[in-house]
Amino acid sequence: MRIGVLTGGGDCPGLNAVIRAIVRRGVEHHGQSFVGFRDGWRGVLENVHEELTIESTRGILPRGGTILGTSRTNPFKREDGPARVRSTLAELELDGLIAIGGEDTLGAAERLHREHGVPVVGVPKTIDNDLGATDLTFGFDTAVSVATEAIDRLHTTAESHNRVIVVEVMGRHAGWIALYSGLAGGADVILIPERPFDIEEVCELVRRRHARGRYFSIVVVAEGAVPREGTLVVQEGKTDEFGHVRLGGIGHVLEREIEARTGFETRAVVLGHTQRGGTPTAFDRVLATRFGIAAADAASQRRWGEMVALRGTDIVLVPLAEAVREPKLVPDELYELAATFFG
Amino acid sequence: MRIGVLTGGGDCPGLNAVIRAIVRRGVEHHGQSFVGFRDGWRGVLENVHEELTIESTRGILPRGGTILGTSRTNPFKREDGPARVRSTLAELELDGLIAIGGEDTLGAAERLHREHGVPVVGVPKTIDNDLGATDLTFGFDTAVSVATEAIDRLHTTAESHNRVIVVEVMGRHAGWIALYSGLAGGADVILIPERPFDIEEVCELVRRRHARGRYFSIVVVAEGAVPREGTLVVQEGKTDEFGHVRLGGIGHVLEREIEARTGFETRAVVLGHTQRGGTPTAFDRVLATRFGIAAADAASQRRWGEMVALRGTDIVLVPLAEAVREPKLVPDELYELAATFFG
Amino acid sequence: MRIGVLTGGGDCPGLNAVIRAIVRRGVEHHGQSFVGFRDGWRGVLENVHEELTIESTRGILPRGGTILGTSRTNPFKREDGPARVRSTLAELELDGLIAIGGEDTLGAAERLHREHGVPVVGVPKTIDNDLGATDLTFGFDTAVSVATEAIDRLHTTAESHNRVIVVEVMGRHAGWIALYSGLAGGADVILIPERPFDIEEVCELVRRRHARGRYFSIVVVAEGAVPREGTLVVQEGKTDEFGHVRLGGIGHVLEREIEARTGFETRAVVLGHTQRGGTPTAFDRVLATRFGIAAADAASQRRWGEMVALRGTDIVLVPLAEAVREPKLVPDELYELAATFFG
Amino acid sequence: MRIGVLTGGGDCPGLNAVIRAIVRRGVEHHGQSFVGFRDGWRGVLENVHEELTIESTRGILPRGGTILGTSRTNPFKREDGPARVRSTLAELELDGLIAIGGEDTLGAAERLHREHGVPVVGVPKTIDNDLGATDLTFGFDTAVSVATEAIDRLHTTAESHNRVIVVEVMGRHAGWIALYSGLAGGADVILIPERPFDIEEVCELVRRRHARGRYFSIVVVAEGAVPREGTLVVQEGKTDEFGHVRLGGIGHVLEREIEARTGFETRAVVLGHTQRGGTPTAFDRVLATRFGIAAADAASQRRWGEMVALRGTDIVLVPLAEAVREPKLVPDELYELAATFFG
Repeated sequence: MRIGVLTGGGDCPGLNAVIRAIVRRGVEHHGQSFVGFRDGWRGVLENVHEELTIESTRGILPRGGTILGTSRTNPFKREDGPARVRSTLAELELDGLIAIGGEDTLGAAERLHREHGVPVVGVPKTIDNDLGATDLTFGFDTAVSVATEAIDRLHTTAESHNRVIVVEVMGRHAGWIALYSGLAGGADVILIPERPFDIEEVCELVRRRHARGRYFSIVVVAEGAVPREGTLVVQEGKTDEFGHVRLGGIGHVLEREIEARTGFETRAVVLGHTQRGGTPTAFDRVLATRFGIAAADAASQRRWGEMVALRGTDIVLVPLAEAVREPKLVPDELYELAATFFG
Repeated sequence: MRIGVLTGGGDCPGLNAVIRAIVRRGVEHHGQSFVGFRDGWRGVLENVHEELTIESTRGILPRGGTILGTSRTNPFKREDGPARVRSTLAELELDGLIAIGGEDTLGAAERLHREHGVPVVGVPKTIDNDLGATDLTFGFDTAVSVATEAIDRLHTTAESHNRVIVVEVMGRHAGWIALYSGLAGGADVILIPERPFDIEEVCELVRRRHARGRYFSIVVVAEGAVPREGTLVVQEGKTDEFGHVRLGGIGHVLEREIEARTGFETRAVVLGHTQRGGTPTAFDRVLATRFGIAAADAASQRRWGEMVALRGTDIVLVPLAEAVREPKLVPDELYELAATFFG
Repeated sequence: MRIGVLTGGGDCPGLNAVIRAIVRRGVEHHGQSFVGFRDGWRGVLENVHEELTIESTRGILPRGGTILGTSRTNPFKREDGPARVRSTLAELELDGLIAIGGEDTLGAAERLHREHGVPVVGVPKTIDNDLGATDLTFGFDTAVSVATEAIDRLHTTAESHNRVIVVEVMGRHAGWIALYSGLAGGADVILIPERPFDIEEVCELVRRRHARGRYFSIVVVAEGAVPREGTLVVQEGKTDEFGHVRLGGIGHVLEREIEARTGFETRAVVLGHTQRGGTPTAFDRVLATRFGIAAADAASQRRWGEMVALRGTDIVLVPLAEAVREPKLVPDELYELAATFFG
Repeated sequence: MRIGVLTGGGDCPGLNAVIRAIVRRGVEHHGQSFVGFRDGWRGVLENVHEELTIESTRGILPRGGTILGTSRTNPFKREDGPARVRSTLAELELDGLIAIGGEDTLGAAERLHREHGVPVVGVPKTIDNDLGATDLTFGFDTAVSVATEAIDRLHTTAESHNRVIVVEVMGRHAGWIALYSGLAGGADVILIPERPFDIEEVCELVRRRHARGRYFSIVVVAEGAVPREGTLVVQEGKTDEFGHVRLGGIGHVLEREIEARTGFETRAVVLGHTQRGGTPTAFDRVLATRFGIAAADAASQRRWGEMVALRGTDIVLVPLAEAVREPKLVPDELYELAATFFG
């Protein structure tokens, strides 16, 4: 049995651990052989690949990123996409594909399988943890750890200077990273896309802390958090040394607003890509490894159209369609729990 | 409502996070007040306590250990134990207790509740992760992280010197830490208490690696791992600079045996208490915080005799009796998965 | 002998280690007692202080920030400043001050001593490492470590996505953090304030890497780096989801310029305040502790007007005037060494 | 110009950074080419080597260990050693060697140069920091960091359990790692080889802490620390589960003695090889890189018989003979400073 492997979408700690586990398991337990496609679906469309062996995947377990490269290429963006996928599989005499990716990559995989009969097994990947059908995705724990460590560091600065510090973390559509790192870091306010915020309520929480003698505050905000409609009148930015108006994402908007409205010195820090690179946490390495083993097993059983997933402590198989149906958002109850610690 | 809190057994990263969450939740959402007992059940027996307030539990979220101290005192080890527990509760006018601990602490809690009607809610704690009725316990992820980081470091020494390195990790009865850190660290052999080992099989795995040009090996062993009956004839130890025979735990036994049997230079490292101290990982802080919230909620609902637990992504309540019935061991299937990477 | 202690300027990992060492040394070896002023010179001007004892400074060694708080208050900004400093000293019956701070704080200390006879010993502090008269300042190693860890993480993202990643680190006037973290992180280009850059030369280095098959690049830039006069025509910014023009510091300028000129996908990450908070590295803890001991010793010998400094492996005393004469910049030779690894 | 490179003695974080810097500098600035010998002097004696190029040394900067392997082979242990070294150099048409190593490796290099005219430049390497003629060696900062992080973790366990914890760190002949990590970790007692200890004085310090309400203590001990003559009567060891008498190095001796003499629960942790593996700190990466550049420069100038060294903030060249004359021990004054914090 010969299988193609690809990684798509944003890079994510644990991708290499999945690849290594697939190959090790597949070769030793199922007699499979593997090719790796370069840069996600692009490598399949253009048939750019390399042989994946136990030797070529050795030592990559602790390494961030993906040795296969990645891209956001979508095979349905070009008319002959699905046909090219099929012809590459035929040309390389592949029995199937293992696609490791997020909503877009798995969405394409699901459609290729459903509409074009492409044999594909999915492995869910997103540092944002917003994929349905799995309790958790690998990469998320690493992102939360990096963000929490940053929040720990920023606490001492906030305290020493009596400042409000706004920490902008990843999460365009879902607030999982903000919620978890905010809980772990002891944030005083957490803002997530699922709950549009009222800037005055945020400022009020900060003011109440001040009134109780807590002269600093940590506000953790997901990059996709938005103000409640009609509540935020954005004020004029400052001019920097190059004569530019300094504006930015939601973190910088909050920086200006909180300082202007409360009079307390406020600073924003945007964590950015540091959250998605580097060595995975032990938790993510184990989860990624278990996913990789399960993917090789699933391919050996020709469970095409399915995806590996974590349920409790078990790795299970679920339909790809289930995973890509809709994003998994932070439920209200969980946000309310976190709010226990606000202000 | 007035509640007593205690932490018992070995210390564990996340205990302070639980305490902080209980107090914050209880005070703000349920109007509860709290006393903390010193050093586990000892503080209850001898009525040594302090008031726990939002102010006195501030800033402890990221700190390892427990501000309440801990001990292995068992109230059933003294005849008047249960009576003293009841009289302390009466004296302090407590409505109930929240006991945070492992098998022993919760076992005492369960019996106090069942036999003596003591109103108690449990919070499971063990870095070993061997408590039933909960998917995971806090502290475990931190222990695995510390062990994995050590294994990462030891890899480069093993490679540079062509050595076998034996890493002894915690786990007297269950091999969870060994299994997870071994998987995460890319161990070549993992030995756990659940599966008595044959020293010759271990040596054979190491020799096979050598034969394939892999001149180093990492063996991760739980402190409670034991040789299969009749398989290990222990050889004579060496004399150190003080004239002592250098012997030790299973790590050092393996060090000697593997070197003597294979002829490959072998070194043991015993990680010891570094695994259980220090700041908890983000994962453990979140889990501990959620447990603390749930425990305060459970007390407010007088769910005595129950314990908070993680099931999938939910925090639930389960009977204390269920948690302490028998230790949760590593299942065979999971060990077999890990064995994919042996040799 | 009774001594006042203050910390001024930006917070810096190691300040608490200095305070603890001063108190421990002074109390036990010299029979000194200590008061700590709140928020730098502000606390002296307004006589806001607290007693500093061995007990009150216990356990602060590993903690970032400063338990005394800090500010940028300058006693020479108000007419009665020097007089108030003297009257506070008289009121509290202090024999002298130990001022821990950077260029501004020590500049004020030097002038207070020279012009107004205020008895003061200085301890140099700046994460930027740009103070003369000392080989290194504490806090610098921590900042470099945080930046290097971030660069390590960003490497894997850069590689997986074939991107140019621009990392903006601290350093308004001197490029020490950029230089050291760039060297340690394996940067492909390092830009510092001391050497105005030509954007086309930067792009050319990136293009040459590409031409040799290195499809990613890491550019480390100090926040104070500036383009060589006349070389950078800044292009129009993009509009973000809130309708703002996204512009920013030098990191974001480089992001736009490199992408526009080379056509390679480029992303900026601004590390910001994470570099100055959190627990100090072991190196900084030792240096800060040695500085604290030396400051208590210097005060006991009434070495007013002097500052502790590191020279090779020794702690020495130098005139405050020497330290604040001019900033210590990155010498050309050192930058040329780093350039060995450019491109 | 063609140069051979070797790494000898115990592995050490930063070796790969040196190798990479030598090659990058040598190829690009001096037109040198390089061969790397396997496993220290063994590779020279047996002419086992590989070509070292910019490509083959790429990406190794952050990796611990040495890609060349290492050994303790001494060319003077075999009669024809020096002759074989010379014949390998002739065979490969090498103009000289760069030897990276500690006392033994550099001692052999010095003698080969002095007695046999072998052209060799030295790079000092030891995590123990006990080489003369250089302010610091790379690897030391990493070892101190690992040990300090462990001590930080152990603090919380010591506090929670009211225990004495003995931490055994590396250092056979010199106590640098113990001194620095003890200072950085806030140890209550530090024991080093340079100062034979009196066990009763150690116990007295611990008892005095207890008497003042500090119910835990951290004792950091170098593996080479020894009791003052006639002061330590070692007591009987305990029998472990395999019927072995549990004895061990100085850490375990102290564990037994302190517990027996004071009655306080005591636990030893032996950090072992974790101190010498893994990614180097930023500090060590910069130092190692600067050493590598300087070594390539020195070779290009045929400064045979010399060694690169750190003096203050400068890299200088010193005679190899100076470096290996005698070990650099912890001076009394520095130990007395550390003693400020004892008890």
